[in-house]
Amino acid sequence: MSTLALSTETTVIEEQLAAARAAIAERTTVTNVVLTACGGSYAVMMPNEYFLSTTATTLETHAFNAAEFTARSSKLVGENTVVILCSHSGNTPETVAAAEHARSLGALTVAFTHELESPLAQASEYVIGYQHGPEKSESYVAPALLLRLVAGLLDDREGTTLSASIDDAVAQLPTLVGDVRHAHTAPADAYGAQYKNEKLIYTMAAGSNYGTAYSFAICLLQEMQWIHSQAIHAGEYFHGPFEVTDRDVPFIALVGLDETRAIEQRAVDFVTQHSDRTLVIDANTFGLDSVDESVRGIVSHLLFGPALRAYADALADHRGHPLSVRRYMWRMEY
Amino acid sequence: MSTLALSTETTVIEEQLAAARAAIAERTTVTNVVLTACGGSYAVMMPNEYFLSTTATTLETHAFNAAEFTARSSKLVGENTVVILCSHSGNTPETVAAAEHARSLGALTVAFTHELESPLAQASEYVIGYQHGPEKSESYVAPALLLRLVAGLLDDREGTTLSASIDDAVAQLPTLVGDVRHAHTAPADAYGAQYKNEKLIYTMAAGSNYGTAYSFAICLLQEMQWIHSQAIHAGEYFHGPFEVTDRDVPFIALVGLDETRAIEQRAVDFVTQHSDRTLVIDANTFGLDSVDESVRGIVSHLLFGPALRAYADALADHRGHPLSVRRYMWRMEY
Repeated sequence: MSTLALSTETTVIEEQLAAARAAIAERTTVTNVVLTACGGSYAVMMPNEYFLSTTATTLETHAFNAAEFTARSSKLVGENTVVILCSHSGNTPETVAAAEHARSLGALTVAFTHELESPLAQASEYVIGYQHGPEKSESYVAPALLLRLVAGLLDDREGTTLSASIDDAVAQLPTLVGDVRHAHTAPADAYGAQYKNEKLIYTMAAGSNYGTAYSFAICLLQEMQWIHSQAIHAGEYFHGPFEVTDRDVPFIALVGLDETRAIEQRAVDFVTQHSDRTLVIDANTFGLDSVDESVRGIVSHLLFGPALRAYADALADHRGHPLSVRRYMWRMEY
Repeated sequence: MSTLALSTETTVIEEQLAAARAAIAERTTVTNVVLTACGGSYAVMMPNEYFLSTTATTLETHAFNAAEFTARSSKLVGENTVVILCSHSGNTPETVAAAEHARSLGALTVAFTHELESPLAQASEYVIGYQHGPEKSESYVAPALLLRLVAGLLDDREGTTLSASIDDAVAQLPTLVGDVRHAHTAPADAYGAQYKNEKLIYTMAAGSNYGTAYSFAICLLQEMQWIHSQAIHAGEYFHGPFEVTDRDVPFIALVGLDETRAIEQRAVDFVTQHSDRTLVIDANTFGLDSVDESVRGIVSHLLFGPALRAYADALADHRGHPLSVRRYMWRMEY
C-alpha cells in the first residue's frame, strides 16, 4: 500500500502546509482546536496539545482518541473549531469517522497522512502528506510538520512569533536526529543485551514529552515487542504508581526542557534511587544549543522519538522479535 | 490525622455544597472549568470532565494532574475560571500549590477534602468536606458530591435540568452501593483466590468510566497491591496495547452506559476471545432502573468504584497483603 512514489515531494508538502495554515488563519471565528487520532498518531498530537494550551491566550485545545472524540459528540465542536487528525495509512476507521463527524458539524478539518489517496485524505478539507521510510527527510515527518502547523496557527491566531524559531529547528532535524541516533546507538545496543528478557518496562514523562513516553509504551513495547508497559505521568508517579518500584523493575524516564522539567526530575531522582534498572534520557544531551531557547522545550519531543527508537531497535534485535511482527493487527478482523 | 469527628455532618455538607454552587452561579463571566488533583483524587475528576465536556454548549473543561496544571500556567486560567480541587488529607503539596496558583490568577477555587482544617481547605475559597470511613453515608462521599456540584454548575450555567435526577440518584446510593457490593462479594472472593499470584492485571474502559479504571490500576493494584498495571483506554486498545493480549494475560474491563459503551464493548469482545483471564463488569447489572435514564451513564462510575473495591479487598485477603501497606508512601521524604 505504502510506496516511495507516494512519499510526497517537499515542495508539495510546503504548499499543503501553507494552504492549511492560510485556511485556519482565514477562519477568524475559531475559538477551539481539537487534536484527534488513534494510538501512535494520537501520541503525536499530545505534545501539540501541550504547546497550544501553554501558549494560547484565547484558543481552547483538547486532544482525544478519535473514537472517544466522535462518541462524545461535544456541542462545543462546530464552525468555530479546527480539527486536526492523523493516520499513517489514512485507513484508520475511527479517525476517518472523526473527520466525517467534525466536518458534518462545520469544523475545519486538516489531516496528516502518508497516503494522499486514502479515506482520511478524502474526508478532510486540507491534507498534508508527510514522508516516511528510508528516503524520508527528518524535516518532513509527521511530528515535525504538525509542530510547524501549530506554531503557524499560534502566530496567526494568538499573535505569537514562534514560526520562525520552530521552522528553523525543524530544518535542523536531519543533523540533530542524526547526532542523537549516533549518540544512542552503542548505549541502546548495551541496553538491548541487558534488558532483552524483561517482561515489563515502564516509561515516564510529563508535559510535552508525555506523548512520546506513551507512544513508546503502547506502540514500541506493547504492540511491537509484546512487553508489558504503562506510560506513567511523572506527576502521578508519587500518588500510586511509585509503590511498584523495586530494585528489579525497569523504567525508562524522560527529562525534557519544558515547564514540567522539575516534575520529571523529581520522579527520576526517586526512581533512580530505588530501582537499579532505570534508563534516563535527558534532552539536555540533545545538542539543542543551535535551537532558539524559547522553543527548546517543545522541540525536545522531536528528538526523544528517534532516541527511544534506537532502544526499540536494539531490544528487537537482541530478542529476535522484529518490530514488524504482529499477532492480531492486520491479521484478522476486529 | 483523620478522625470520625472530622467526618462532616450532612447538614453542613449540604450548606457547603449550596454555597459553592451559588458562588459559581454568581460568577456569570465563567468560561472554563479546570478539575485538578493527584492520583486517586485526580481519577475522581475524570468522569466529571466527561460529564461537563459532553453536556456543555459554552463552558470548556480540562482535567489535569495538579503538578502539571501549575507548571503549565495556562493563560486561559483567570477570573473566568472555576478550579475544582480534591485531596483527601488536604495536605497534598501539589494540590495545595494548584489552589494557590489558581487563586493568585483570580480563579474561583472550590476544594473537596476530608479535612476541613487542612492546607487545601485554607487555600481555597469554598470547601466541601466529604465523608469517609465506616460511618460514612454513600451519598456523601467525594465522587457523589462532586457529581452533584457539577450537575448544579451545568444547570446554572448551561440551562440544563440535570440536578434533580443526579441528586435523586445520589440519594439512592446507600441502597445501590449496598446491592452492588452484595452482588460482587462472592465473585470477588473467587477472583481473589484465582488471581492472587498475578504479577500484572490490566484494566480497561472509556468515557466516564476511564477514571475508575485508572484509579483501580494506579491506586488499588500498583499502590496497594504492588501489582503491575495500566489503565488501557478501550479506544486505544486496538492501536497498540491489544498485541500484549494472550490467553494468560489478565484484564478487568468495564462496560458502562454512556456514549462510549460501544467502544468498551468492542474491546471486551476482542479481549474475552483472546484471553482466558478476563473479568468484565457491566453497568447494566447495577440495577439502575430507578435512576433517571438520562443520567444512568454518568452515574455508573459511582457504582463501578464500589464493585471494583470488592475485588481489591478479595485480592488483598488472598494475597495476605493488606491494602493499607506501603513501602514508600508516608514512610520517607520524596
